[in-house]
Amino acid sequence: MDRRKILLLIFDGLGDRPIAELGRQTPLQAARKEHLDWFAANGINGLVDPIAPGVRPGSDTSHLALFGYDPIQVYTGRGPFEAAGVGIPVKEGDIAFRANFATMDAGMRVTDRRAGRIREGTGDLAKALDGLDLGGGVRVLFRAGTEHRAALVLRGPGLTPHVSDPDPHDEGAKVLSAKATAPDGAATAKALNAFMEKSHKILKSHPVNIAREKAGKHPANAVLLRGAGIVPHLEPLGTRIGMKAAGIAGVALIKGMFRAAGMEVLEVEGATGGLDTDMVAKARAAVDALKKYDLVIVNVKAPDVCGHDGLANEKVRTVERIDAMMAVLKADLGPDTVLAATADHSTPVSLKDHSGDPVPVVVFGEGVRVDDVTRFDELSAARGGLGRILGRDLMPILLNVSNRAEKFGA
Amino acid sequence: MDRRKILLLIFDGLGDRPIAELGRQTPLQAARKEHLDWFAANGINGLVDPIAPGVRPGSDTSHLALFGYDPIQVYTGRGPFEAAGVGIPVKEGDIAFRANFATMDAGMRVTDRRAGRIREGTGDLAKALDGLDLGGGVRVLFRAGTEHRAALVLRGPGLTPHVSDPDPHDEGAKVLSAKATAPDGAATAKALNAFMEKSHKILKSHPVNIAREKAGKHPANAVLLRGAGIVPHLEPLGTRIGMKAAGIAGVALIKGMFRAAGMEVLEVEGATGGLDTDMVAKARAAVDALKKYDLVIVNVKAPDVCGHDGLANEKVRTVERIDAMMAVLKADLGPDTVLAATADHSTPVSLKDHSGDPVPVVVFGEGVRVDDVTRFDELSAARGGLGRILGRDLMPILLNVSNRAEKFGA
Repeated sequence: MDRRKILLLIFDGLGDRPIAELGRQTPLQAARKEHLDWFAANGINGLVDPIAPGVRPGSDTSHLALFGYDPIQVYTGRGPFEAAGVGIPVKEGDIAFRANFATMDAGMRVTDRRAGRIREGTGDLAKALDGLDLGGGVRVLFRAGTEHRAALVLRGPGLTPHVSDPDPHDEGAKVLSAKATAPDGAATAKALNAFMEKSHKILKSHPVNIAREKAGKHPANAVLLRGAGIVPHLEPLGTRIGMKAAGIAGVALIKGMFRAAGMEVLEVEGATGGLDTDMVAKARAAVDALKKYDLVIVNVKAPDVCGHDGLANEKVRTVERIDAMMAVLKADLGPDTVLAATADHSTPVSLKDHSGDPVPVVVFGEGVRVDDVTRFDELSAARGGLGRILGRDLMPILLNVSNRAEKFGA
Repeated sequence: MDRRKILLLIFDGLGDRPIAELGRQTPLQAARKEHLDWFAANGINGLVDPIAPGVRPGSDTSHLALFGYDPIQVYTGRGPFEAAGVGIPVKEGDIAFRANFATMDAGMRVTDRRAGRIREGTGDLAKALDGLDLGGGVRVLFRAGTEHRAALVLRGPGLTPHVSDPDPHDEGAKVLSAKATAPDGAATAKALNAFMEKSHKILKSHPVNIAREKAGKHPANAVLLRGAGIVPHLEPLGTRIGMKAAGIAGVALIKGMFRAAGMEVLEVEGATGGLDTDMVAKARAAVDALKKYDLVIVNVKAPDVCGHDGLANEKVRTVERIDAMMAVLKADLGPDTVLAATADHSTPVSLKDHSGDPVPVVVFGEGVRVDDVTRFDELSAARGGLGRILGRDLMPILLNVSNRAEKFGA
């Protein structure tokens, strides 16, 4: 049996609902996309419920499912993936928090939740906090994200996610003392409160902040923390399915998902995670990566951005740019590769948010049972040979098509 | 996000198999039904396995599934829903029994299982038994149903459903002493036996029975009990999905299902649960109810009656009467309502009983991805955009379409 490689393309938020502005078509139906349609015509198609029928997925839970994990079993919250996304090497049992650099007055009152939307110097500020010893064997891992965003991880004995947020969530309110929300949260609350005190001391006298104050800008003299989440045990994807796996994504959260699943993250110049992302560069990088890796997963964030922003025509154009990416893959992918293209969820332009509508999927490669679907869209896919499947079924289906599935029974 | 209301129509036993008498069509295929087909043509269609593929559902388990519960998790037997259906305000942990008024001779032998199909006076007889104290803190809740039927609920400490039936099930046999079928059934058996003794004493000297004997009719001097079932915990549907929910049905069992799910039961004049039911009145009542409630579920029993009675042409006519109901809904439903029409199971005319064949479903409303199905029947539905779904997936799908689904993940 010839084992094949797998390229899984996840077009973030690609699914949609009929849009009046597009003649009651979805962006996929309205777009010109001969290459996407070529894959549909030469592959097997179906509908995917990322989590379950009607369930509205987050990007985190749906990616877990498309990687082949059961999200209901393993998901503990977004924090751990955000932390991994900004580069913290998270380990099972770590407690992760979403963090903001903020401005606090002398009375511990939050005067600016985003520290003047600070952009410069956050890396230096983060470095000053990273590695702090909070006592009791608890150590800090801290990294800056985009703008005022950052992530904190606490590592040490006896930590749990059962603590209240120090973040008061409102401007003008005082930073809160963390409290255990269950008896086993005491050590974490103590460590968090120690962090709040030590970090404030370090930040307020940090050169970056002294310079900001001189320039009349809000100093980033506090860190607001929220959403404690324990890093779950995820058996590394590569081990689980016996493949060397790598991921390509522009946005930090998805990079964090790849890292949490034990995959290598490949950086691609021009892959921004925005509407201006260089999709063709991503396609070329994927083709390249398949020389070294058995499984490559690519996330393209742009359609989700159009959905959240309610931009119907921009979403159509994004599909057409995706089509250019598919042209490259059609030309350059070797016959030893199985390609699958799908979405992590629908982000209907009319909703400006994720919905529980299923998304189309096409699987293309040698050995696939080619059905008579000729277009890649939400309704054509419903008549495809794959029927309606769950997100977590896709990876086993791809392992089967690539002749890598383990036999259950004898 | 615009939240919409939901109208769920459950046509009881509507699904069927090809019938020779109808030219090997199903009643849905044979009937003239332009309005049902209009909804199919303007909605998204699919097939529903109420419980699971090939599983033959009861009306109780399938309604639980269509309400969005997992019937395999929550179902404990039909008794509790029958009891709720005749108006007993059941509570979690109550033990419910199906009951018959019957005639017993002096030797405790059952001489008529239906007490001459008694119709009059059962309410008075029930009242004489309701509230009985059986000792050990166990109290009786008793209500009459249709004809000789009734329901008993035992409420008190230490009760379980692990008891044998006092009902001997055969005429000429003696009423049985209830026995524990597991060690924890002793208290229930004791209470049941106390009920048998006390109820017989009360009933035999009750004026209703004295009058019956004078008129040469069989007295209802005993209550036969069978099918002990514990009332399960059902999180009220309204709480579960955050909607104010009401149900419309002619038959007691379905009313009991609504009540057990914490829904309001709306009475509609002319809604009998029989072939003579006024379906248009039900449609109008549903339109009205949607002004006050977010979710309205309507059960129409007539097609099931035709199936059980083996009446092919009558089932065709019933579909045509359903179509008149759909005409009203097509005209009067507001654009803020999502409509779904399906069945709780198939009741093929050729079987005169429920079958495990899947049933068609159509979902209609703003935002739905309209497929190219143009007829509402078992085979057209199979090519629809919803594919093949489980009964318990329908409510999440409706919550999604009505923009009420919770996000899982971030």
